Amino acid sequence: MRYALGIEYDGTGFLGWQRLAHGATLQAAVESALGFVLDHEVQVTCGGRTDAGVHAACQVVHFDTEVERGDYGLRQGCNSRLPHGVTVLWAQRVPDDFHARYSARARRYRYTLLNRPTRPALYRHFLAWERAPLDVEAMHRAAQALLGEHDFSAFRTVHCQAPHPVRELQEIEVRREPGDRVVVEVQANAFLHHMVRNIVGSLLPIGRGERTEAWLAELLAGRDRTLAGPTAPGGGLVFLGPRYPRRWGLPEEVCL
Amino acid sequence: MRYALGIEYDGTGFLGWQRLAHGATLQAAVESALGFVLDHEVQVTCGGRTDAGVHAACQVVHFDTEVERGDYGLRQGCNSRLPHGVTVLWAQRVPDDFHARYSARARRYRYTLLNRPTRPALYRHFLAWERAPLDVEAMHRAAQALLGEHDFSAFRTVHCQAPHPVRELQEIEVRREPGDRVVVEVQANAFLHHMVRNIVGSLLPIGRGERTEAWLAELLAGRDRTLAGPTAPGGGLVFLGPRYPRRWGLPEEVCL
Repeated sequence: MRYALGIEYDGTGFLGWQRLAHGATLQAAVESALGFVLDHEVQVTCGGRTDAGVHAACQVVHFDTEVERGDYGLRQGCNSRLPHGVTVLWAQRVPDDFHARYSARARRYRYTLLNRPTRPALYRHFLAWERAPLDVEAMHRAAQALLGEHDFSAFRTVHCQAPHPVRELQEIEVRREPGDRVVVEVQANAFLHHMVRNIVGSLLPIGRGERTEAWLAELLAGRDRTLAGPTAPGGGLVFLGPRYPRRWGLPEEVCL
Repeated sequence: MRYALGIEYDGTGFLGWQRLAHGATLQAAVESALGFVLDHEVQVTCGGRTDAGVHAACQVVHFDTEVERGDYGLRQGCNSRLPHGVTVLWAQRVPDDFHARYSARARRYRYTLLNRPTRPALYRHFLAWERAPLDVEAMHRAAQALLGEHDFSAFRTVHCQAPHPVRELQEIEVRREPGDRVVVEVQANAFLHHMVRNIVGSLLPIGRGERTEAWLAELLAGRDRTLAGPTAPGGGLVFLGPRYPRRWGLPEEVCL
């Protein structure tokens, strides 16, 4: 039997999603809780890996088991074993051909900057800080150049293991929110490693007026990572989650 | 010379505002930073004390010094010495008869509950958790019985040191916000110790349908703390700040 879980987590204090030989990772925490509840070793596959310090509003994983616990029992059992900061929002039996990674048609991220002269205190693990006043409209206009299918090598870390650098960026919005916040929300079929943080890092010089709006399109066309802005810090990033076709019958929040 | 500071803080890990002989308090952190910047011992007076784990969006303090650092230098100097989670938002010279506590005409608090079946992971230090679906409209209507000048003994902890239990509640709103949140926002001329958290604790049985809307008015009239609901947890509470008459010329966010 195959199950899917929706998982919310605070990435602060974790070394990221993927299991490592040493150190706290989200995959290890989830697999350990499932192992206890199901009484056998479990391997989970996620909809999108996150880096150290990056959070998730609804990560999705799948795994296989022959043990019958029920959706409710599975959720509650996991939550009783998971550390603070990791919560299973729902557990659901899914068809055997559902795959958390390959069935996903899109992934969605939100990056939040606190744009004021003084550093964040409240919610600081969920915010990056930019003290220079940002021209959010210029950032938004510039970002639209990324829409569509492109080679995103300019925004790809050298550590990226993806076989090719072409992705389809479906939506990108830069907006101001109450409380001096600037939010970048972005959706693509999939992302390269560090792609969101590198895009944000390259939007910032445009927002500060140090670069023209056209610069982002030039970076994209140049495909040279060394010319783009620095990688924005991980804490400002929330993986909103993967998105699946409706026919899988998953909760609304992860449907396209 | 008298100065006022606006201070944002994450109360997680602090034993509350007020200085204690042992343990990390916000008052001690602020006085220590000021002492370093001004090179003399400093005592600050705050606009409203907060308990352990309670946060502040804009606490206001005043203190006296003969050392001239300038508003900007004072703010930046403090921030370079303050621990993570405490930020001076602004520093401002004020008239000698300004008093952070006695000049305040009102205080404002926000309490946030996550209202869903599973515990909070993201932002969990800023949320209390209520799994039963809440009737927010019933809570809001019930809360309006508290408006005006009343003896609030029903919502006062036995440890409260205030000389009398009469306060004027100026505004109270209970509303639902995106992300399964229920927010209680309340303003009074001043609050008794634990008053906001005890009001929230008594609104919850009404929201869950265990008590009628009229119950809150009965509690208020009975002035018996032992009949009211339990004190809601500290982490859900943010002290939005004291409010002063405009003539003091303080930043907009702390003006009436």
